[in-house]
Amino acid sequence: MVLNDLQRELREFAAQRGWERFHTPKNLVMALAGEAGELVELFQWLTPDESADVMTRPEQAERVRDEVADVLAYLLQLADRLDIDLAAALRDKVRRNERRYPVELAKGRADKYDQLRSGDEV
Amino acid sequence: MVLNDLQRELREFAAQRGWERFHTPKNLVMALAGEAGELVELFQWLTPDESADVMTRPEQAERVRDEVADVLAYLLQLADRLDIDLAAALRDKVRRNERRYPVELAKGRADKYDQLRSGDEV
Amino acid sequence: MVLNDLQRELREFAAQRGWERFHTPKNLVMALAGEAGELVELFQWLTPDESADVMTRPEQAERVRDEVADVLAYLLQLADRLDIDLAAALRDKVRRNERRYPVELAKGRADKYDQLRSGDEV
Amino acid sequence: MVLNDLQRELREFAAQRGWERFHTPKNLVMALAGEAGELVELFQWLTPDESADVMTRPEQAERVRDEVADVLAYLLQLADRLDIDLAAALRDKVRRNERRYPVELAKGRADKYDQLRSGDEV
Repeated sequence: MVLNDLQRELREFAAQRGWERFHTPKNLVMALAGEAGELVELFQWLTPDESADVMTRPEQAERVRDEVADVLAYLLQLADRLDIDLAAALRDKVRRNERRYPVELAKGRADKYDQLRSGDEV
Repeated sequence: MVLNDLQRELREFAAQRGWERFHTPKNLVMALAGEAGELVELFQWLTPDESADVMTRPEQAERVRDEVADVLAYLLQLADRLDIDLAAALRDKVRRNERRYPVELAKGRADKYDQLRSGDEV
Repeated sequence: MVLNDLQRELREFAAQRGWERFHTPKNLVMALAGEAGELVELFQWLTPDESADVMTRPEQAERVRDEVADVLAYLLQLADRLDIDLAAALRDKVRRNERRYPVELAKGRADKYDQLRSGDEV
Repeated sequence: MVLNDLQRELREFAAQRGWERFHTPKNLVMALAGEAGELVELFQWLTPDESADVMTRPEQAERVRDEVADVLAYLLQLADRLDIDLAAALRDKVRRNERRYPVELAKGRADKYDQLRSGDEV
């Protein structure tokens, strides 16, 4: 299982350095949010079109790839610490959203987005 | 590959609903940050100890599991859209951090955290 | 009016550099979130007690002061751009919260925080 | 002083409810980040043009005004708790940025944004 493998690597990395005590769920959530903030900074002045081309510029591409990895690292460590099966949690979410947003209603309705409460998944 | 499977599911989910045009990298990064913010809200008033027990309270556990899945969903969609191999990016990161934080130096040094620039991985 | 003065300074600063076109509300919101993320990074590994003493360490104090100013700068520019009277918006909020959290009910009730939906103002 | 007045109101509001002990700097920073995340959610699916018109739609306008007030509330409480003079911190910042981004160099240079490290103030 890829996710589990990555989590084990990260767990060992932290354990070897005696860093577990810093990794309370509260702290890991903050670290995740901090990395999400760094990712936002890479995109904040880009137009939507520029954002679609960001990987064609080597320097930017490297930083985006790096920040995306940081977010994943903290997400995996948080889930590991809380004993959440990430893949199962995501699959449950998709199942629920299939009921909430049936294709026949949602399809091609741009205006749907106006009616979604903000924060709803799309 | 688990990550790829999840990404394909999410891609189909969005495609069936005609939502791809909302999914610019810029927008997906914002959605990811928004979900990270919701996760932060679940932990903001908890003490570190309370945060470690959050999964023992069924209602909170469900919300944490849900938000963690949301963050993962947008991270996977962002990586998919940018053609970033998440597992490879994370493994590269771990390799780099093994060089930056050698065990013999980092181990058991609580004060290390004072010297890290904030935002550094732990 | 202090807030208005600061907003005028920031407006002139951006106008002199021809930066207005980057300052769409969408982009300013992202910049605000990015700075909030940097602030989070400064506190993520601190215990609550350490966080209370952060200003006694000159280097950390300077960075916290700096990030707090960055958040304020983008908040002021966003409000200016959207024509939101920040002081009035906050006063309305306080009035509403006085009704939602009456002193006689909220006072001294630590457990209140368990019942608040996360994200509620405290 | 407007900022000080607002801070005193918020301080009394929290004190009357015995909420000071939840208001560690660490927790307030998280609350600020959470509110910034909610603000991001209101803008995440909007085009830049739509984001410029957000205040013309009464329902959205109300929510934006509300979240902006929430961010300000936590920022003021954080600064109050840390004894940071927000107006002075911001003025120092503007002075520094005037030196970093001299008008004659920055003016009208759209490409400037490519050269700024992300997260730099604009």
